[in-house]
Amino acid sequence: MTDQADGLAVTVERIEAAGRFVLVCEHASNFFPPRWGDLGLDAEARAAHIAWDPGALGLARGLARRLDAPLVRAGVTRLVYDLNRPPNAPAAMPARSEIYDIPGNRGLTPAQRYERTEALYLPFHARTCAEISRRLALGLVPVLVTVHSFTPVFNGTPRAVELGLIHDADPRFAESLLAEARARTGLDCRLNEPYSGADGVAHTLARHATPMGLPHVMIELRNDLIATEAAQEAMAETLAPALTAALTRFEGGA
Amino acid sequence: MTDQADGLAVTVERIEAAGRFVLVCEHASNFFPPRWGDLGLDAEARAAHIAWDPGALGLARGLARRLDAPLVRAGVTRLVYDLNRPPNAPAAMPARSEIYDIPGNRGLTPAQRYERTEALYLPFHARTCAEISRRLALGLVPVLVTVHSFTPVFNGTPRAVELGLIHDADPRFAESLLAEARARTGLDCRLNEPYSGADGVAHTLARHATPMGLPHVMIELRNDLIATEAAQEAMAETLAPALTAALTRFEGGA
Repeated sequence: MTDQADGLAVTVERIEAAGRFVLVCEHASNFFPPRWGDLGLDAEARAAHIAWDPGALGLARGLARRLDAPLVRAGVTRLVYDLNRPPNAPAAMPARSEIYDIPGNRGLTPAQRYERTEALYLPFHARTCAEISRRLALGLVPVLVTVHSFTPVFNGTPRAVELGLIHDADPRFAESLLAEARARTGLDCRLNEPYSGADGVAHTLARHATPMGLPHVMIELRNDLIATEAAQEAMAETLAPALTAALTRFEGGA
Repeated sequence: MTDQADGLAVTVERIEAAGRFVLVCEHASNFFPPRWGDLGLDAEARAAHIAWDPGALGLARGLARRLDAPLVRAGVTRLVYDLNRPPNAPAAMPARSEIYDIPGNRGLTPAQRYERTEALYLPFHARTCAEISRRLALGLVPVLVTVHSFTPVFNGTPRAVELGLIHDADPRFAESLLAEARARTGLDCRLNEPYSGADGVAHTLARHATPMGLPHVMIELRNDLIATEAAQEAMAETLAPALTAALTRFEGGA
């Protein structure tokens, strides 16, 4: 399988994959490119969940192999630009994230915000659009699945949910996956937890699934469940059949 | 004012304009590039409303001057690719439009559909996204206005509506403009006529306004009212103050 990298912002792995799912991992990386420096963060903060979604890339790759899916993934930490946010969202380049201050994002000028938008946001979403549009033009109806992880303890409060399924305007595919995941896994599965599209966290779905009328879901795994490569592989092995069954259910076959 | 052309698919006129509105004219042109030929149509069909929105570009340019707005416009007939439709919509490359057969769109292969998508749809929408994103990153909240015209008689039935205002998910700016247009013009103004976003005709708004939370409207002028350059200028002179007043009303100033 060939990959295509459009510079730092985005790489498409398995670009020729022929399955029904298109996977996107906006928070795949905690790479801090020299161009923007370390944003004033120490090594511990740069490795923490504020910088990326730990385990999400490994899970997404495991799913991509099992589902014969392309994977559109970021190459830069979300703290330089959070690709799941529009350029007008404060969270796109946050000056604070959970308990951490981000000194390098404090007092950004409009020109600095635009420079990151142009370098990261525009190519990432142009490439995501291109991969989906190519499949649509060829007569396929892709299912857009974004793959994320969340921290078990947020602002001091533990989270019980293990698998969160979040949707944009159309809940139907997320609901199908909820039913299959509850039937097939031992996970604590919940719809629109630990947050929902109403919180503005489903931007990639809103940009690339809803305007095309595509089935979609944002998968959120609690990151303590996918902390190692072995755990990521095991979770992919669990979730891939649930996704396939959800598609069958969604299309009326179950 | 400088323009930027990204090849055939898209040109941005007045790219540095600093006003609140961003104008888009997807059906600005009835140019049939040699690459795709005349699609088997005679000169009369190539000049008809099926090939473009007559008068829309002149109106959009008149509005752009008066509102200090950039104008993102197409360079190719909608019959090769209708930029206000996603690649999976049959109407993106229609084999029939109103009373006309389009022989050159009959039996298109998936590869042909993809070739047009890549050549026209992707660059047009990437550029539209870039213009909006640049303004968002710089701290502005643009209002997205797409400018269209419709035929006075469709499938033999005359249409009484003169100005149609169509919205995607959020109706508020369109409703504000409806109130101002009714108060300020003698036009027969209607919301979501002669068709609505539920008919899938508001794709550009769904892709570029709704995911960013931007105020938006699709303007549809009956084309007999903007048949000459003088009429286009007069209509721009009528509508520009209504748009400005609608924004004031929308933002709570009226």
